[in-house]
Amino acid sequence: MNIFVLNCGSSSLKFQIIETDLDLIKDDKDRTLAKGLIERVGSQAIISFQVEGQPPLKQAAPLRDHRAALNYVIKWITDPETEIPGIRSLEDIHAIGHRVVHGEERFKKSVRIDKEVIAGIEDCIDLAPLHNPANLKGIYAAREQFGPSTPQVAVFDTSFHSTMPEISYLYAIPYQTYRRFKVRKYGFHGTSHRYISYRYRKLTGKEREDTNIITLHLGNGSSACAIKGGNSLDTSMGMTPLDGLMMGTRCGDIDPTVIEYLMHKEGTSIDEVFSVLNKRSGVLGISGLTNDMRDLLDEIKEHQDRRAILAVEMFCGKVRKYIGAYTAEMNGADAICFAGGIGENSPEIRKKIITGLDWLGIELDDSLNEQAYGGKAMKISSAKSRVEIFVIPTNEELILARDTLRVVLNVPRIW
Amino acid sequence: MNIFVLNCGSSSLKFQIIETDLDLIKDDKDRTLAKGLIERVGSQAIISFQVEGQPPLKQAAPLRDHRAALNYVIKWITDPETEIPGIRSLEDIHAIGHRVVHGEERFKKSVRIDKEVIAGIEDCIDLAPLHNPANLKGIYAAREQFGPSTPQVAVFDTSFHSTMPEISYLYAIPYQTYRRFKVRKYGFHGTSHRYISYRYRKLTGKEREDTNIITLHLGNGSSACAIKGGNSLDTSMGMTPLDGLMMGTRCGDIDPTVIEYLMHKEGTSIDEVFSVLNKRSGVLGISGLTNDMRDLLDEIKEHQDRRAILAVEMFCGKVRKYIGAYTAEMNGADAICFAGGIGENSPEIRKKIITGLDWLGIELDDSLNEQAYGGKAMKISSAKSRVEIFVIPTNEELILARDTLRVVLNVPRIW
Repeated sequence: MNIFVLNCGSSSLKFQIIETDLDLIKDDKDRTLAKGLIERVGSQAIISFQVEGQPPLKQAAPLRDHRAALNYVIKWITDPETEIPGIRSLEDIHAIGHRVVHGEERFKKSVRIDKEVIAGIEDCIDLAPLHNPANLKGIYAAREQFGPSTPQVAVFDTSFHSTMPEISYLYAIPYQTYRRFKVRKYGFHGTSHRYISYRYRKLTGKEREDTNIITLHLGNGSSACAIKGGNSLDTSMGMTPLDGLMMGTRCGDIDPTVIEYLMHKEGTSIDEVFSVLNKRSGVLGISGLTNDMRDLLDEIKEHQDRRAILAVEMFCGKVRKYIGAYTAEMNGADAICFAGGIGENSPEIRKKIITGLDWLGIELDDSLNEQAYGGKAMKISSAKSRVEIFVIPTNEELILARDTLRVVLNVPRIW
Repeated sequence: MNIFVLNCGSSSLKFQIIETDLDLIKDDKDRTLAKGLIERVGSQAIISFQVEGQPPLKQAAPLRDHRAALNYVIKWITDPETEIPGIRSLEDIHAIGHRVVHGEERFKKSVRIDKEVIAGIEDCIDLAPLHNPANLKGIYAAREQFGPSTPQVAVFDTSFHSTMPEISYLYAIPYQTYRRFKVRKYGFHGTSHRYISYRYRKLTGKEREDTNIITLHLGNGSSACAIKGGNSLDTSMGMTPLDGLMMGTRCGDIDPTVIEYLMHKEGTSIDEVFSVLNKRSGVLGISGLTNDMRDLLDEIKEHQDRRAILAVEMFCGKVRKYIGAYTAEMNGADAICFAGGIGENSPEIRKKIITGLDWLGIELDDSLNEQAYGGKAMKISSAKSRVEIFVIPTNEELILARDTLRVVLNVPRIW
């Protein structure tokens, strides 16, 4: 089955076409036939398409909205010159899988999209005002372009964390705020943490219920997850993706009183303060230079910039504290798994995070660590480390494709 | 030297008269001659006075403000019938030590109070609008009653944490917010964490620079502190005492977006939301019953109340996560020290916190744990625990008295 996997952000559109079926999943041989990214939807968009095994195609075009962007993608896919293996027309695409950021408490697993589901995703907009509307635009556009006979499936960023117990997900505020308004920790990056956990089991031969690990998705958005018995026990992001680890532009953990204080001191609105906390904080806010960890590390190498160093130290220190917290919460962990742009590609950051955790029995093998980048899944802990350390390139699209297949075929969890 | 130690809260006044000098400190024989507490200042006040070795005296009187309350205290002290050892008139009190909550970055140690210091404490009101004004009222009233010749000293809740490095105290928000508005983590309960650390050294014979411990001040307000080389390395409270652990009525760590969301959902002001987070959250908010841990534990014993259990589990879980985080941050700890009303008196809570930390090498001796309450300082870890565990009744007043002596005599740190 060929699955069109769609991830619409507020001004971006990412897709993959993945061939998968139950046998391919069993053999772990699902295949990405093509992929693409459109950025700056809503103005002169920057477009990158790639057919498997071919060089990427860079383009630019004015694209008004997600509908226009998806239309542009479909034109490319069905263009006779494009030659995606097995794809000649839209009929060769059998289902569509959408990434949806917030599923609140109502969506605990992936579901086939119908009117009721769309209404449910709309109801979650209050909790994810930046994300769910973009996801919905993708759903509306796909229905328009592919027609109602192509099944669409929603896969939620929050649903992997629906196993968190009350003690993890409740905030210590009046219980009625949870009952009445569903104010609680939801957690995000669930598809990624779920994939990392799956891949860890594949690498080690562990059973799902024996999987007790800490997964670290470190990118421009970052989160940590404590996985116990294969289920999410706790995670660092909160009711929204603002909370937890320090991120590219987001502040993570902060005394909430800071908001009131800044409103008062700066004479600004609460919206402006949250805009700063979401878009101008984190690594960018501390360094004053960039939200990109690669650029920051280059800056340190070239100029030993004091605040760049500080931003990196704070970023790593925060990850270290979460490793400690989750080790305590789970009474130990079998492994720590790094993923995400930073986690997969920066031996330097991984080393900074792990250095000084030997009391906890967590030790790197420096040479293995240096070898792990660019998409390699491998173990990087030393032989005497009590906790194994892995680098596991994440693959949210694969989970999206497989979940879509599973929902369309109506089969239970297969791995 | 007889020191009058004063701690003024928004509607309360606590005092002790402590006899101390350099020899008494060396022998650890400072002596509390009398103490008292006045609650509900501003209406019909509830008063409790006690002379050393005598039963407490309970009284009630209408007391308009802190000035009237202090006047009431002084009348009692100088009343010929009171007979505090060595105290016949106000001239037998040689100095006054004030607890001041917020010293911002300007007060890194205790100081003699003069006009400039008062102006400095006033400048910190923005950061501690609930606390510093009450502390100042105590200072004004004491100057009026004791006259300008009795030296007054300010001891700050924040100053022990002034050793925190940038990586601990900065929030991941634009660096200019720190430079311009001093938005950062300050930490509180510093006098308590400092006392616990001092008493730990006395108990174990450790040198200051070899002291690597986690101190837990658990009461109606709660905070954890990572002490490395005798200095505060990190602490759980933030710019204000709202942040960090779950407390009696305060929420502790929370996704700041919750504030905006509740304002929107409840249609209330930001002040009202912060009032809920400060006064109706924490253990009270979750249980819906009480902010008092003793009452909550009784409730659980008698009725197995589900939300009471939940509140206790959340409280303990949060402490456990901070123990893990600080263990990671310090790469191990020699000891964990419990203090505060809950930490000193509840074997049950201590057991709940420590249970399931054996992977980290932290193990209780159940029988010793059961014996530690009611003011006993003792070790409660098992023989095989890699980390020692202590119960150490805190004594902030002693630090206040000794610091006052030290500042008045102008001698450097003496322990």
